[in-house]
Amino acid sequence: MSLGPSCDIMGSKCRRHPSRKGRRYMVIRPYIRKVQYYETDAMGIVHHSNHIRWFEEARVDFLEQLGYGYHRLEEEGISAPVLEASCRYLAPLRFGEEAVITLALTACTPVRFQVRYEIREKEGGALRGEGHTSHCYTDGKGALLSLRKANPGFYGILLEAMEAQEETEEGKEG
Amino acid sequence: MSLGPSCDIMGSKCRRHPSRKGRRYMVIRPYIRKVQYYETDAMGIVHHSNHIRWFEEARVDFLEQLGYGYHRLEEEGISAPVLEASCRYLAPLRFGEEAVITLALTACTPVRFQVRYEIREKEGGALRGEGHTSHCYTDGKGALLSLRKANPGFYGILLEAMEAQEETEEGKEG
Amino acid sequence: MSLGPSCDIMGSKCRRHPSRKGRRYMVIRPYIRKVQYYETDAMGIVHHSNHIRWFEEARVDFLEQLGYGYHRLEEEGISAPVLEASCRYLAPLRFGEEAVITLALTACTPVRFQVRYEIREKEGGALRGEGHTSHCYTDGKGALLSLRKANPGFYGILLEAMEAQEETEEGKEG
Amino acid sequence: MSLGPSCDIMGSKCRRHPSRKGRRYMVIRPYIRKVQYYETDAMGIVHHSNHIRWFEEARVDFLEQLGYGYHRLEEEGISAPVLEASCRYLAPLRFGEEAVITLALTACTPVRFQVRYEIREKEGGALRGEGHTSHCYTDGKGALLSLRKANPGFYGILLEAMEAQEETEEGKEG
Repeated sequence: MSLGPSCDIMGSKCRRHPSRKGRRYMVIRPYIRKVQYYETDAMGIVHHSNHIRWFEEARVDFLEQLGYGYHRLEEEGISAPVLEASCRYLAPLRFGEEAVITLALTACTPVRFQVRYEIREKEGGALRGEGHTSHCYTDGKGALLSLRKANPGFYGILLEAMEAQEETEEGKEG
Repeated sequence: MSLGPSCDIMGSKCRRHPSRKGRRYMVIRPYIRKVQYYETDAMGIVHHSNHIRWFEEARVDFLEQLGYGYHRLEEEGISAPVLEASCRYLAPLRFGEEAVITLALTACTPVRFQVRYEIREKEGGALRGEGHTSHCYTDGKGALLSLRKANPGFYGILLEAMEAQEETEEGKEG
Repeated sequence: MSLGPSCDIMGSKCRRHPSRKGRRYMVIRPYIRKVQYYETDAMGIVHHSNHIRWFEEARVDFLEQLGYGYHRLEEEGISAPVLEASCRYLAPLRFGEEAVITLALTACTPVRFQVRYEIREKEGGALRGEGHTSHCYTDGKGALLSLRKANPGFYGILLEAMEAQEETEEGKEG
Repeated sequence: MSLGPSCDIMGSKCRRHPSRKGRRYMVIRPYIRKVQYYETDAMGIVHHSNHIRWFEEARVDFLEQLGYGYHRLEEEGISAPVLEASCRYLAPLRFGEEAVITLALTACTPVRFQVRYEIREKEGGALRGEGHTSHCYTDGKGALLSLRKANPGFYGILLEAMEAQEETEEGKEG
């Protein structure tokens, strides 16, 4: 799967959320952010741990664009801790550059979701890094939750977003 | 007040805690830690925000040496958020160096305490930075607490530590 | 001096840069950024070390708005390391909130500049923190520089920005 | 491969470094470090990006134990940037706990090395996380290097360390 600079999520066939039928396109804007000086290291490049933080920033931004901020999820007593995180570093980023981060949901079950990320430099657009994170759902005490039971509305939103991505991909490939 | 590389805190005249009379010296070891690569920036030096973090590390280590870890304080529902923090940067630290951080309590009331810090490089011992933080006490919801009421035992430990410092200073000056 | 949410810098009497005479207002936009989850700590609030990092972000953004990014300064071999940094924490910021950071140059000589910052929460606008940093100029090897000699153009831009602030302040007070 | 709490590296059959024949055991101490308060997040646990930083700390400590600090490598103009990093999070770590990090070289060629890490909590010893990083070698300008040419001494040390691990593993399994 290739993540373009802007990832159109069509909502045309959303069976699960009939009320949303009218909205035919949900465009997810990529997450753009400048390299901060404090993120660089003595090699003069962004320290590799920050890519994992940028994935989080992009994920939080994605949920906000879906209309259900992670902030709101936590207020309702649900957290989504990280089970796995990885990143491949293709070329370094430097202070003065801007990172463009696109993402896609690559799995979504009642107890887990997985996200794939691509980091590009804004000017040239070349891929600088890519990675993924996977997450479970827990309550305030860290006990595992089924999202279908704990928050079916949010679960539906994630399913819809993933389905829409697939349709967009099919459209691109067809 | 000058903080030496090791800060002897004599407990010889502790009126407040008669049970501790027997212990005549409480030596507070300085806090030593290596510069980490991820703490450097593109200038090749430790980014200035990390000094504020090192102050926290040294403060936590100090409370542990006093026998009452910050961890334990938080378990009892008391936090000590930062009201003010400052640092003067005299010379940079680099990867491959070790920082030696000494501290002293400079104020201690039922509602506030203040700490002063000095950062030296381990090899040469020259001063690289100095600063201070001040703190209040809050409960789990952020409401201000009087430590004398909320935890008189811990308050006594802080008072004793400060008094002992003063005696050490007097001893040095006399 | 009070920093409003948007800090008008009038350029009406810029003697030093006659070519800029035509531009009568230079509006410096405040720097706005969301609290990131990785910036929170176990108290559920933004860790106090991050305010120092936000000051840097706002300072870098300010220089960009002045038309001379810090990035460009470093490419020309000039760095502006921090000599002092301080912050007063008036009320905590939490994940889900946005910080609005305004700043003002409070001193500007050939060998040093000082910046004052205010952090407000976007919604309510109440002051959450305030602080300052001061900086010198160094070459690539850390030797002190006079900005008037090393980069008179950038020095003029800083002087002009400070003067314009003062006029704005006078206008407010008058 | 299982990494024990202390990882014996036997040097008994080191063909590559005859001068080291006499030393029969090289014990690599695990890297131990306390969870810092600023490493926690609003979930009350260590933020997942810090595990990637701890891997770096452990790696730097490992090289120092091998007698060739990363610091020295950089002074000689060689860097070892990260090509890939990953972590699986099995259980969270909290403020007040100590992390014990063990590592093993899992690949070592003239142009690349790979390290595997395990993070355990000091008290109970249960596995809290595991991951890996892989690295290439570059000069000061980011161009790829062959370590065999650029620094055969250091390359030999890495090969020897990996071989010794394998012998230790065989000894455990046999």
